[in-house]
Amino acid sequence: MRGVFLEKIKRNERLSAMARILTDAPNRIHTLGEFCERFGAAKSTVSEDVDTLSQAFARFEMGEVATVAGAAGGVRFRPLLSKAAAARVLEDLAARLCEPGRVLPGGFLYTSDVTSESDTAQRIGEILAVEYYDRQPNLVLTMETKGIPIALMTARALGVPLVIARRDSRAYEGSAVKINYVGGGDRIETMALARRAVKPGQRALIIDDFMKGGGTLQGMVEMMQEFQAEVVGVGVMIATKAPQKKLVEGAKSLLVLEDFDQESHVAKVAVSPEYQL
Amino acid sequence: MRGVFLEKIKRNERLSAMARILTDAPNRIHTLGEFCERFGAAKSTVSEDVDTLSQAFARFEMGEVATVAGAAGGVRFRPLLSKAAAARVLEDLAARLCEPGRVLPGGFLYTSDVTSESDTAQRIGEILAVEYYDRQPNLVLTMETKGIPIALMTARALGVPLVIARRDSRAYEGSAVKINYVGGGDRIETMALARRAVKPGQRALIIDDFMKGGGTLQGMVEMMQEFQAEVVGVGVMIATKAPQKKLVEGAKSLLVLEDFDQESHVAKVAVSPEYQL
Repeated sequence: MRGVFLEKIKRNERLSAMARILTDAPNRIHTLGEFCERFGAAKSTVSEDVDTLSQAFARFEMGEVATVAGAAGGVRFRPLLSKAAAARVLEDLAARLCEPGRVLPGGFLYTSDVTSESDTAQRIGEILAVEYYDRQPNLVLTMETKGIPIALMTARALGVPLVIARRDSRAYEGSAVKINYVGGGDRIETMALARRAVKPGQRALIIDDFMKGGGTLQGMVEMMQEFQAEVVGVGVMIATKAPQKKLVEGAKSLLVLEDFDQESHVAKVAVSPEYQL
Repeated sequence: MRGVFLEKIKRNERLSAMARILTDAPNRIHTLGEFCERFGAAKSTVSEDVDTLSQAFARFEMGEVATVAGAAGGVRFRPLLSKAAAARVLEDLAARLCEPGRVLPGGFLYTSDVTSESDTAQRIGEILAVEYYDRQPNLVLTMETKGIPIALMTARALGVPLVIARRDSRAYEGSAVKINYVGGGDRIETMALARRAVKPGQRALIIDDFMKGGGTLQGMVEMMQEFQAEVVGVGVMIATKAPQKKLVEGAKSLLVLEDFDQESHVAKVAVSPEYQL
């Protein structure tokens, strides 16, 4: 009996540890052999554990644990939120962005406090990532500064590196590609990216926090052309309803900034139709 | 027998899900009641599960699952790396920063590719956080841009929000406090922070990627004084050996940039003595 009891404890501990390892590195493939070695367990045992994790995560809507076949195969976790869970997160987010006092002079919305919360940024990143697993990006590109937290968390969910374009080429980034683009209010702005940051043929997912005209995003698209990289998607947390025609094509947005009330200092933010329940 | 089997599966699934919930929100307290409700389990059952998780995480050096007593008590996960695990991470990091081609004109080191990897940033953030759990910061402060990924991951490990100081007060952040500080090469630089970002009496942990003279960090200390916030610590990923006397006091650094070879374009980076095995 004692033996059986110990064995059971061991399985529970192994499952707890495997849950931690898989969820800590989303979308990265771990071989079964890696787990066998770490836990001194047989392949069949680890396989059973993977099934248990997969069931548990499915039942509690915590994401997907999947077995990937083939030579480079193994087990992989993706933090796939259910449609209902994503809608709940986005409804909460929209409600927070409608709080009084967030509307700033010039038609801007104060969102930094929300996007800089690591758990909120993580949820937003996970919801954005869902759209792009199939496009298999090699990197996430964003433009400094406010979009960095959600772009980093999108990159985390996809298991790829983040690349940050700068307003200026700084000495500490080495030789850089510099382009001009049309920013807010039709101003000509500058964007710089370290030459070594992106390689030809890489697949870039462009992520930012906010889209009004889409000029900055289009600037990033053009930057990727300079690097001969392919843009596999453009996603933002929130896009303004007007202008309807954006400079960048096909951008996905989680939220819509529909209107402002300059007097009451309240914004009207809604969940984008495709994310509503 | 069938009943027992089902019960066992259920426990395994519950453990997997609890591991995910706890590790996904480091340093946040979850009440036992929260788990009882979610899993339809008795308090004694959930308590046992917490013990199992705690043992598993301790055995595999994955962090600490602890029970916090008192009215606001519950269960909490902290990604505490063992001294050996932290040393391994930092040795790998130092080795990467010694790769040829990272030394840039002006004595800068290219580190953006490393710090923008979400998993690397997360490990650095977790190692930095260990030093400051006891100081109970309410927020992590950094200055744009390169330090943001590791600062966000430090904030994640500590379960507190990130606050980002800007070079410029931008229209979309509202009214801001602006200060001057002595930056690299004794230049006077500007730092701005949204007025609403920090409240009087809050406890700030200052995190950045790089420290040479310490001017930017000292600027952030002065910025916190403007907000009547208390600085509970200053931590960076890498500090230059020279000058030995920094403008900011008591900063902790994970790595030391000892020297440069401008000709071979190789930096000499070592793990800080206190993090060596």
